[in-house]
Amino acid sequence: MAATPDHADSHVVGVDFGTLSGRAVVVRVSDGAELGSATFEYPHAVVDRTLPGTGERLPAEWALQVPSDYVDVLRNAVPEALAASGVDPASVVGIGTDFTACTMVPTTADGTPLNELPEFAGRPHAYVKLWRHHAAQGQADRINELARERGESWLPRYGGLISSEWEFAKGLQLLEEDPEVYAATEHWVEAADWIIWQLSGRYVRNACTAGYKGILQDGEYPSREFLAALNPGFADFAESKVAHEIGALGSAAGTLTAEAAGWTGLPEGIAVAVGNVDAHVTAPAAKATQPGQMVAIMGTSTCHVMNGSELAEVPGMCGVVDGGITEGFYGYEAGQSGVGDIFAWYVRNQVPQSAVDAAEAAGKSVHQHLTDLAYEQPVGAHGLVALDWHSGNRSVLVDHELSGVIVGQTLSTTPEEGYRALLEATAYGTRRIVEAFNDSGVPVTEFIAAGGLLKNRHLMQTYSDVLRLPISTIRSEQGPALGSAIHAAVAAGAYPDTRVAGEAMGSVDRATYTPDPDAADAYDALYAEYLLLHDWFGRGGNDVMHRLKAIRRDALGSGRAATDAVDPTRASGESEAPAVEGASA
Amino acid sequence: MAATPDHADSHVVGVDFGTLSGRAVVVRVSDGAELGSATFEYPHAVVDRTLPGTGERLPAEWALQVPSDYVDVLRNAVPEALAASGVDPASVVGIGTDFTACTMVPTTADGTPLNELPEFAGRPHAYVKLWRHHAAQGQADRINELARERGESWLPRYGGLISSEWEFAKGLQLLEEDPEVYAATEHWVEAADWIIWQLSGRYVRNACTAGYKGILQDGEYPSREFLAALNPGFADFAESKVAHEIGALGSAAGTLTAEAAGWTGLPEGIAVAVGNVDAHVTAPAAKATQPGQMVAIMGTSTCHVMNGSELAEVPGMCGVVDGGITEGFYGYEAGQSGVGDIFAWYVRNQVPQSAVDAAEAAGKSVHQHLTDLAYEQPVGAHGLVALDWHSGNRSVLVDHELSGVIVGQTLSTTPEEGYRALLEATAYGTRRIVEAFNDSGVPVTEFIAAGGLLKNRHLMQTYSDVLRLPISTIRSEQGPALGSAIHAAVAAGAYPDTRVAGEAMGSVDRATYTPDPDAADAYDALYAEYLLLHDWFGRGGNDVMHRLKAIRRDALGSGRAATDAVDPTRASGESEAPAVEGASA
Repeated sequence: MAATPDHADSHVVGVDFGTLSGRAVVVRVSDGAELGSATFEYPHAVVDRTLPGTGERLPAEWALQVPSDYVDVLRNAVPEALAASGVDPASVVGIGTDFTACTMVPTTADGTPLNELPEFAGRPHAYVKLWRHHAAQGQADRINELARERGESWLPRYGGLISSEWEFAKGLQLLEEDPEVYAATEHWVEAADWIIWQLSGRYVRNACTAGYKGILQDGEYPSREFLAALNPGFADFAESKVAHEIGALGSAAGTLTAEAAGWTGLPEGIAVAVGNVDAHVTAPAAKATQPGQMVAIMGTSTCHVMNGSELAEVPGMCGVVDGGITEGFYGYEAGQSGVGDIFAWYVRNQVPQSAVDAAEAAGKSVHQHLTDLAYEQPVGAHGLVALDWHSGNRSVLVDHELSGVIVGQTLSTTPEEGYRALLEATAYGTRRIVEAFNDSGVPVTEFIAAGGLLKNRHLMQTYSDVLRLPISTIRSEQGPALGSAIHAAVAAGAYPDTRVAGEAMGSVDRATYTPDPDAADAYDALYAEYLLLHDWFGRGGNDVMHRLKAIRRDALGSGRAATDAVDPTRASGESEAPAVEGASA
Repeated sequence: MAATPDHADSHVVGVDFGTLSGRAVVVRVSDGAELGSATFEYPHAVVDRTLPGTGERLPAEWALQVPSDYVDVLRNAVPEALAASGVDPASVVGIGTDFTACTMVPTTADGTPLNELPEFAGRPHAYVKLWRHHAAQGQADRINELARERGESWLPRYGGLISSEWEFAKGLQLLEEDPEVYAATEHWVEAADWIIWQLSGRYVRNACTAGYKGILQDGEYPSREFLAALNPGFADFAESKVAHEIGALGSAAGTLTAEAAGWTGLPEGIAVAVGNVDAHVTAPAAKATQPGQMVAIMGTSTCHVMNGSELAEVPGMCGVVDGGITEGFYGYEAGQSGVGDIFAWYVRNQVPQSAVDAAEAAGKSVHQHLTDLAYEQPVGAHGLVALDWHSGNRSVLVDHELSGVIVGQTLSTTPEEGYRALLEATAYGTRRIVEAFNDSGVPVTEFIAAGGLLKNRHLMQTYSDVLRLPISTIRSEQGPALGSAIHAAVAAGAYPDTRVAGEAMGSVDRATYTPDPDAADAYDALYAEYLLLHDWFGRGGNDVMHRLKAIRRDALGSGRAATDAVDPTRASGESEAPAVEGASA
C-alpha cells in the first residue's frame, strides 16, 4: 500500500538518540529512501567518573548524562541532515525519535531538568540516569523480593524480575539517597518522552517505555500499598511523579513548536510522533511486525523485540507490553546487556600492539582482523568457552551483578581466540533467549538482525549456526532512525499504521545467512558447556560473582571513586568513538 | 664449617640447563662467591611446531629439544663464564649441573641420541622429549588407572598420580607411536644424566630424577607384570631401558674427560658431580636443607622442594624420594606448572600498547608497570578471581588437561587488574599446596623463595599475605647454578656433604616479607573463592576443561599442526627471551 496521495513528495525526519551520540536521517515518505543523515556526539558523553562543574567523583556503577546534550542533537544533527539531503524543509511533514531506555530525567512541572536549576547543579541525583546506571541494584532487589512475596500480578510480565535500570528502581534510589532532589522532582520522565516534550511542548508518555520500563500493565502501575511497603515516602511515587497521559506508538504527541522549529530548521506545526525506544522502533524498519519475527538490534548491547498474538509469560524476558512494539499485538522484549561493548572492551584492554599493527597492515579494523584470524580455525579449535556477562545479564537471568568468565585459556591461547570466544558467547546468550521464548509458547520463527554488528559476517554466520535459524538482515544501516521516520510518517497521516508504513518504507534481506549443519553440530557441544556455566554461575550454584562485587565494593569503600580507580585510561568527557554502532538500550 | 684446607683457593663450576638456555657460573669453594657467569641460548629452543630439517609439523602438546644444544652450552657458556670470572682454570676442582626434568633422551648403548643417527633424524620420537611435552597424557591416564586397580605401593608416593611428563608415560608413548625408534632406544636417559655422561663418559642415574620421575621406590621400579599389563611390549621397559647404576646427590659420577675438557676449558680429570634437577639443587644454595623449610623456585613455573624426616603421603604431591634432595632425609616435591609463564603469556597476548608505552615512559618493564598500577588498589578491588592452570595443574590435582579461568571481568576491568588476578592466582595455588603438606603431617614452617620472580616485590608480599607466612629469599640470582656448584664442591671433596657445603656457600635473607594481617584477611575471602572454583573445575564438578581440550583436538584433527594453527605469533626457532628467569622443571 502506497502513502496517501498527499504525501507522495513528502519527507520525514527520524532521530535516534544513542548512548554517545544522536543521529538524524531525512527519509522519503513514499519508499523509505534515506536521503541525508548527520550525527552529533554528546559533549558530555557518559558521565561516570566526575560530575560536570563540581568535579565530584561518582561511585561505582553510576552513569549519568546531561539533558542539554540531547537538545544539541536537535540543533546540530537535524539541520545538517536536512542540508545533506537537499530536500526542501517545507516538504518535511513529521519528526519521530527513539531513545535509549530506561534513561530517566528528573524535571520540574514544566519539564526543566533539575540539574539546570542552580541549586541542584552540583547534585549527582539531579542529572539524567542513563540506562546503564546500575547503582540501584539494591532497590531493584527489594522491589523483586517484595513483589514475589505479595504475588504482584505484574511481576511475571517481566520474566519474574524487575531491572535495576528501570523507572521504579532508579526512582527509589533517588528518594533514598537524595530526598531533596526527589521532593523537587515533579515528573520522573523517560528521556524518550522528554525530547518529545522539547519538540512539541507536550508531555506524553509513550506506551512502550511506560509498559516495559514503567511497570504499566493493564492500565495500572504498582499499587500505593506496594510502594509504601518498600518505603513509606515512596507511596505516591507512581501517581505523583510517573503517571501521565499515554500515547500509542505511531500517534502524534503534538506538533512542532516555534522554538523547536528554530532549532531544527523544520516547519513549525508538523507532526511530532510519540516517543519510542531504539530497539522497538526498528521492527517496522525491518518489516518485522508479524508474530514470531524476532528482531535483534545488535550494537553495544543487543535488544530483541518480537510481536506475539497471545499473552505469555516468558521466564527472564524483559517484558511483554500490549502495543509495546506494534498496535494490536503483544510486544515481547529481551536483551543482552553487553555485546559490542564487550568486543570493544576486549580490543581496548586485551589486545596487543602486534595485532593492531597487523590489522593496520591488512587495512582492516582490529575487530575485523581478529575475526578473520580467529575464523581460520574450525569451530572449537580454540578450546575456550566464555560467559558474556561483562555488563551483567539482562535475559534470562536479569542480574546485573553477574560478570564475565572465560574458561580454557592456555599458554598458546591467542588474542584472536579470546576474541572469538566472546563473539560466540554472545551467540550462545542469544540462543538461550530464543529457547526461553520457544519453550514458553512464543516460538521464534525468523531471526532478523539489525544494528552495527551486522557488518561482521563471521559473527552473523556464527549466530545462524548457533541458533540453527536463517538470519535475515535489515538493509538500512540506520535502522532505529529509519524506524523513527516511519513512526513520523504514520503520525503525519501518510500511512494508517506502522505495519503498513513499514511494508512501504522498511527493507530487509531474507535468509542472508543460513546454518551450516557441521558447524551447528560443533557449536552444540560448546553451547552445552555454556549452559552448564550459565546455570552454575547464574542460578546460585556458585554465587562467586555476587561475592566478588561485594568484595570490590568493600575494598573501594562506598564513597570512593570506583570508576576512577579502576579505569584510568578513560578520561572524563573524552568522546570515545564506539567500536560498533547500534542500539544501546 | 669451612672447606677442607686443600680447597681454600679452589673454584667450582655450576651449570644450570633451563628450558631455553644454559647458564654457567664460576663459584669460590670457600664462601660461595659467584665470580663470573655466562648464558648460552639453545639454537633450537623448544621444538613445538616443526621438526628441524624435515619441517614436519608436530601435533598439539608436543615439545622437543635437540641434544647438541646442550653440548653447545658446555662449549660456549662455560669458557665464557671462566673468562668473565678471571680465575685460573687450573684452580677449578669440579663441575656440577642441573637440568629441567623430566626431560628424556633416547640413546644408543654409547649414549648417542637417536636423532643424531641419519636413519632417525626425521622421526619426531627420536628427539628429546622436553619436560613440557604433554602428549603422553593418555598413557599417563592408563598407568594411573592400572596402578590404582592393582594397588601398586608406589602410587601414593606420587600423591596418587603419575604425571604425563615422566619417564614411564613418555616411554610408553614412544613404544606405542614409534615402535622402531623404541626398539632402537637402548637407554631411556634423563637429560640430567645424559649431560653428565657427556662430561664424564659415564652413565649414572641420579637418585633425584630416578626417584621423582623414574618411579624408583625402595630400590625397585614398577614390576614387569604391571608393565606387561599396560602393553605386552612394555614388559621389559624398566629393566632393559631405564634401570642403571644410581648415584647419590653430591657424589661424583666420574671425572672430566679430555674431550669435555676441550669443550669447556676446564682441567681434565676434575670431579663431575652426579646430575641433578634445577629445583632440588637449589635447596642448599638457599641454606634450606632442614625439615619444614620449603624452597619455592619461582620462574616460568614453580617447583617446591622440602626435606622431611618422616615418610608421609601427601595428596597430589609430585613425589617423595629418599635422599631426593639431601642425603638422609625424605625429599618432598610439589609444583605449579605455570607461574611466570602465565604472566609472560598475558603480557604477550593480553596487554595493549597503551600499557607498554606507559611502562616505557616510566622506565619499567611491562611486568613491573602492570604490577605497580594494579597494587595501587586495595585487595579485592578488581573483583576478579582466576585459576592458574594455563599450563595445567601439577599439584595438588596433577592434571595437565586443566586450563585457565578468569571470573569477574566487567567493562571496566583493566589490563593491570587481569594481571594482578593472575599473580594472586599463583599465590592461591601455592597456599593450596602448603595446606596439603600441613594437613598430611609434613608441616611447612618456613617459605623460602628463589628464582626470577623474586624481583617482583608486590608479588612476594602477596605470597606472604596469602600464605600468612614470612618469606625468606635466596640472595643468589642464579640459585640453581650455585646449587650445582655446591654439589660440585662436595663431589670434589671440599665438604663432607651438601648440608655443610650449603651452610658455607649458600645464602639467604630471613623473613624479607612478613604478612600484613589486614591484607591476609582480605585475601582469605578471595582464596575461599579460588578453592570453590579449584574443586569444581578440578575435581569433577564440571569437567568442562577436559571436554574443551577434547573438542579442540577433534577440531584440529590428530595429525594437524595444532601449535602452528593456534600460535602464529611464535616463530619456530625464534629465541624468545623469557619474561622471567628461573626454574622450569
